[in-house]
Amino acid sequence: MDSRKFLQFLVLSFSVALVLFITWFHLPSLPNNDSLLDCNLFSGWCTSKNRFRSFTKPNLIKKTPSSTNNHKHEYDVPHHPLDPLTINEFNKVRAILSTHSLFKSSSSYTLNSIVLEEPDKKLVLEWKKGDPLLPRKASVIARLQGVSHALTVDLTTNQVISHETGLVSGYPVMTIDEMQGILEVPFRNLEFNRSITRRGIDMTEISCLPISSGWYGTPVEENRRLIKVQCYSKKGTVNFYMKPIEGLTVLVDMDRKEVISISDNGLNIPMAKGIDTDYRYSVQKLNGELRLFNPISLEQPEGPSFKIDGNLVKWANWEFHLKPDPRAGIIISQAKVRDPETSELRSVIYKGFTSELFVPYMDPTDGWYFKTYMDAGEYGFGLQAMPLDPLNDCPRNAYYMDGVFASSDGTPYLQSNMICVFESYAGDIAWRHSECPITNLKVTEVRPKVTLVVRMAAAVANYDYIMDWEFQTDGLIRAKVGLSGILMVKGTTYDNMNQVPNQEYLYGTLLSENIIGVIHDHYVTYYLDMDIDGSNNSFVKVNIKKQETSEGESPRKSYLKAVRNVAKTEKDAQIKLSLYDPSEFHVINPSKKSRLGNPAGYKLVPGATAASLLDHEDPPQKRAAFTNNQIWVTPYNKSEQWAGGLFVYQSKGDDTLQVWSNRDRPIENKDIVLWYTIGFHHIPCQEDYPIMPTVSSSFDLKPANFFDRNPILRAPPNFKEDLPVCKARDST
Amino acid sequence: MDSRKFLQFLVLSFSVALVLFITWFHLPSLPNNDSLLDCNLFSGWCTSKNRFRSFTKPNLIKKTPSSTNNHKHEYDVPHHPLDPLTINEFNKVRAILSTHSLFKSSSSYTLNSIVLEEPDKKLVLEWKKGDPLLPRKASVIARLQGVSHALTVDLTTNQVISHETGLVSGYPVMTIDEMQGILEVPFRNLEFNRSITRRGIDMTEISCLPISSGWYGTPVEENRRLIKVQCYSKKGTVNFYMKPIEGLTVLVDMDRKEVISISDNGLNIPMAKGIDTDYRYSVQKLNGELRLFNPISLEQPEGPSFKIDGNLVKWANWEFHLKPDPRAGIIISQAKVRDPETSELRSVIYKGFTSELFVPYMDPTDGWYFKTYMDAGEYGFGLQAMPLDPLNDCPRNAYYMDGVFASSDGTPYLQSNMICVFESYAGDIAWRHSECPITNLKVTEVRPKVTLVVRMAAAVANYDYIMDWEFQTDGLIRAKVGLSGILMVKGTTYDNMNQVPNQEYLYGTLLSENIIGVIHDHYVTYYLDMDIDGSNNSFVKVNIKKQETSEGESPRKSYLKAVRNVAKTEKDAQIKLSLYDPSEFHVINPSKKSRLGNPAGYKLVPGATAASLLDHEDPPQKRAAFTNNQIWVTPYNKSEQWAGGLFVYQSKGDDTLQVWSNRDRPIENKDIVLWYTIGFHHIPCQEDYPIMPTVSSSFDLKPANFFDRNPILRAPPNFKEDLPVCKARDST
Repeated sequence: MDSRKFLQFLVLSFSVALVLFITWFHLPSLPNNDSLLDCNLFSGWCTSKNRFRSFTKPNLIKKTPSSTNNHKHEYDVPHHPLDPLTINEFNKVRAILSTHSLFKSSSSYTLNSIVLEEPDKKLVLEWKKGDPLLPRKASVIARLQGVSHALTVDLTTNQVISHETGLVSGYPVMTIDEMQGILEVPFRNLEFNRSITRRGIDMTEISCLPISSGWYGTPVEENRRLIKVQCYSKKGTVNFYMKPIEGLTVLVDMDRKEVISISDNGLNIPMAKGIDTDYRYSVQKLNGELRLFNPISLEQPEGPSFKIDGNLVKWANWEFHLKPDPRAGIIISQAKVRDPETSELRSVIYKGFTSELFVPYMDPTDGWYFKTYMDAGEYGFGLQAMPLDPLNDCPRNAYYMDGVFASSDGTPYLQSNMICVFESYAGDIAWRHSECPITNLKVTEVRPKVTLVVRMAAAVANYDYIMDWEFQTDGLIRAKVGLSGILMVKGTTYDNMNQVPNQEYLYGTLLSENIIGVIHDHYVTYYLDMDIDGSNNSFVKVNIKKQETSEGESPRKSYLKAVRNVAKTEKDAQIKLSLYDPSEFHVINPSKKSRLGNPAGYKLVPGATAASLLDHEDPPQKRAAFTNNQIWVTPYNKSEQWAGGLFVYQSKGDDTLQVWSNRDRPIENKDIVLWYTIGFHHIPCQEDYPIMPTVSSSFDLKPANFFDRNPILRAPPNFKEDLPVCKARDST
Repeated sequence: MDSRKFLQFLVLSFSVALVLFITWFHLPSLPNNDSLLDCNLFSGWCTSKNRFRSFTKPNLIKKTPSSTNNHKHEYDVPHHPLDPLTINEFNKVRAILSTHSLFKSSSSYTLNSIVLEEPDKKLVLEWKKGDPLLPRKASVIARLQGVSHALTVDLTTNQVISHETGLVSGYPVMTIDEMQGILEVPFRNLEFNRSITRRGIDMTEISCLPISSGWYGTPVEENRRLIKVQCYSKKGTVNFYMKPIEGLTVLVDMDRKEVISISDNGLNIPMAKGIDTDYRYSVQKLNGELRLFNPISLEQPEGPSFKIDGNLVKWANWEFHLKPDPRAGIIISQAKVRDPETSELRSVIYKGFTSELFVPYMDPTDGWYFKTYMDAGEYGFGLQAMPLDPLNDCPRNAYYMDGVFASSDGTPYLQSNMICVFESYAGDIAWRHSECPITNLKVTEVRPKVTLVVRMAAAVANYDYIMDWEFQTDGLIRAKVGLSGILMVKGTTYDNMNQVPNQEYLYGTLLSENIIGVIHDHYVTYYLDMDIDGSNNSFVKVNIKKQETSEGESPRKSYLKAVRNVAKTEKDAQIKLSLYDPSEFHVINPSKKSRLGNPAGYKLVPGATAASLLDHEDPPQKRAAFTNNQIWVTPYNKSEQWAGGLFVYQSKGDDTLQVWSNRDRPIENKDIVLWYTIGFHHIPCQEDYPIMPTVSSSFDLKPANFFDRNPILRAPPNFKEDLPVCKARDST
């Protein structure tokens, strides 16, 4: 073969190899295979056959619902010390545990939680891209023979390196298998079956919910993991929540899976008819007739401007680490903003997430008093995050991130499209000024406000929580809670308010015939480990006080004076907001001064909120004592992340933020954590029936003398040339 | 000519005629002509030559800035009883006044305000489209020889039908001519010139502002219309606000146009350098380098879905009347929402607008104590509304509405692009629910939230107020205030906080070398004439109170109980908000019950706000006593629309909402007006320099048992086919 022919042969061989190579890596996956492991899309709870196992050669496993995300999680490897556990790591943890003496000897156990055990903060802060990854560990919560175990599994040494039991009261977050398993229990009970039949309800029409039972210090609660089950009829509607079987409550032992007692006292209450309660578009009789507006869409002709590399998000002047968590939902870590003066990335938040929720219903009667949900610690806020609808939950150009969580036997499963990331423009204004004609300067300068939104929607049974983290180019971070979904309602004999005797109190609003929307509160408590330009920060209350002028000082009798108080210890930072005793709340770095000598800081700016008014000695309030103040500041402590305690389920309130804060530790110029609670009082109204228009509230973290000047002073306005050329799809 | 040729001739003639006709109507207008009467775009204040005169044949008069609006106002005729005065009507009023004895005999007078005198509410409510228009009247405020006159001009009979003087303390809203005229006064004063020269400032570099002087009960204020003038240097920056000539205040008699006294005591304070204060994009040195994100745009491939017919706006399930007003800015009237059950348009608001603002600065020293602006009643909130930037103040598809106002001699002029109307979609969710896997129902239903925004941006000298009314399809109305623009700052000798002695209080924050941002409040008070299904309404405070359970009643110790209190008289509805004594605030129609017997209502939902803490006896607070409570309810009274009084300028506080409300009139089942104040405490920070990122707050009017159920239950989701196909403009 001469050299020319050899070259031809080489080129040909290479081409063939290339084609084969490309084909190999782009082989279409079989639909069968495809749907195997996406539990959210294709099944109720994942059964074991649908879970990721330790494949030596992982198959293609995920069907993309209809949008952008077709990430293959089998190939995931961690790149950052905070990256969540990968499929391989989950499988490794499972393998290590299976050989551990604790589990080897036991025939049945539940792994309630397996998540990354984050490396020490100090190590994470020192770590830089390119450095070797820090040793990977998993934090495991397990239940075994009635005992809760907290273990740390070292994925380098393949060993359990710590193992603790009986630290605090309460039980771990329920697993999804447990929640599902409980629901079968009443059906095996004769009394339950009889009661249903007596009400003339077909057993096949019933849908039941596992309702966390709270803790009230009664003997039946001692050393027993309890849950209550209440049921609904789904006859004629998908919205069974509007058809409660009122008065029937089954108390179940969660570990033994047996009925303890049945309370049955609502026989006289007729089943609501559920007319017009189905909210699915497909069953509406007026399809299309109620289109109230023409299509409108957020368009980015040059594509989105964020980049997501693994779990690292970069957008505009922001960078942060984003990960799904089974308990918290979204975890934002190491949020940093670029200073336009120095081009330096400056730290704002080390870690921020929804630490706990508290949703007490305001009805002390038998079937209702215990409804005092703590959704993160009881049900898992992330576990309840449903796949987002790619055209309606988020705009078209959103990026979707999946969660990979462990099921109760340790096998990983996919929570697909759990978080979306998108840029938003509502037509709002980032800053503006027009010179008024008086000054004879012809100036109008306006900048559009574009933000980056990170969103999750958790449907904790009936309620939907839309959780947003919003980043603005001016350095502001907004955390927003949107409430939608379906009310928890109570059956009643009344059809109309005119039947209700004047002195009778309904504990809520008559929403429909035989349906009362019971009054309740929502509290969402955020953990905000602020690191303003470093970990050592102080909390400053800038109190705004009326100052009277002295005789002859001024024609004014009074003015408002800002008085700065640096909090020395935790109790200085237990704060109840007050309209008539207002303050600003700054987290500052006392060692980092601006050019003008002001300490670099961020302030917490509350939005509309509500405070819990329950008695502090009321058991639910004791367990949710983290809502006793709106703001708290604690010194950083790795073990103090869950405001209601590590084990919230049936907790007695011995491990709450209130308990920690009462130790009154020093917090000045320390690594501190800021806590803020958004509250809502919800008196339902008929408009909330059969599905609630979203109600939202938010708070802001806003730079305050952090930047030397407005960081978006030099941002350009919109120009005509920036805007896209669009046409309606059907005109193509 | 045979018939064929005749036909050819006809066709040809017709074609030529058509071409001529088209050419005639589309002749490009001369730029000269074009710009003649748009005062906002092409000149400082309008001088008399730029105003609309009584043309018998009006010329083309308006140059469209770059967008949609090219309405010819000369042809305007009123179609609705609430439509603002037209150019012809303004000219008629002017003609009628010029022959009136009062003005005929006087050589100089000022017409401070000419607006439509709205017909009696009863007549407006009875009026229907197609009915003859109600008689047109103008309400005129004039100043003449030191006396303020309130007149009503009947445009049917061409007569002045009412004429009153000396009703209350204070003076009318300044005219723009007056504001401008004042600024020349100091320059004719030797002492002022000397002081400027002594400071080494070039007279040509100076920009001055007319600062309302408040009222403090001193002899110099008696029977004199006063204003204070302070000046700035515009050397090297368009942002002269950041270069105050500190300590120099000129007290001017506004009627006599003469200097009364000069206070001059800041000679030691150096002029701030103003470096990096210019915010214009054209002068930034980093053009383009700081583009933080790719273009993003709200696109509506089928066009906007609202219709605007004169001043009537129809969008989705809403209809309302919208008009510009020189004092209030935006007036929303007869806002009605369609009930999907009955298809009936139901009344929500008869009239809503920004009644007054109060902006007290918190510095009691000589050059600052009097800065306690009441922007609507002193400067005219609508008069200060600048033309909106069509690509940045509002999205591309916005509709723009002009204001036509009267200048101080009565001639109408154009306030172009004063209000915009657009649909907004931020990626938010109107309602959603996902069934969680536990129930084994595969349901995810989500509806995108699209709203209609009505916006104005008023630049009252330094500050910019972005005023939004936002309408939601679920029946909610949100009123939002955005604050941007430029701070009012104070010169100081300090360069850095390390120079400030510990005990010295600066009244604000050191923002830049030699510049303090002085602490201040903003209060914006809304007039909300609610007409829920008719005029006779009641105000119900639904108080949320802790209720302790009795012994043995429940394992719970407490719950929250909603206690309804119908306000009988005005004092029952003087409300200070409290986080720990919360209430809902409903306006209901006691005669209109829902299907279930709940009274039809809307509730006021406050957002984040602030309360005035100034001493009630402090003169500024007395004048702004409408901020003593956050909520008030008064019986409808045509003369009680301006919360600070008809004549706010130098008022003594004898005509405020507080004074009216203290009469404690019955308000149950009456035509009532709800008042709400949004407040802000503003401690400036360096990020506000040299131009402030927008800070906003809002309140909602939300249906509460107004609809029988969620009114957008049947709204469709977004479908893929609804979304447009877009490409970047430069790819065309």
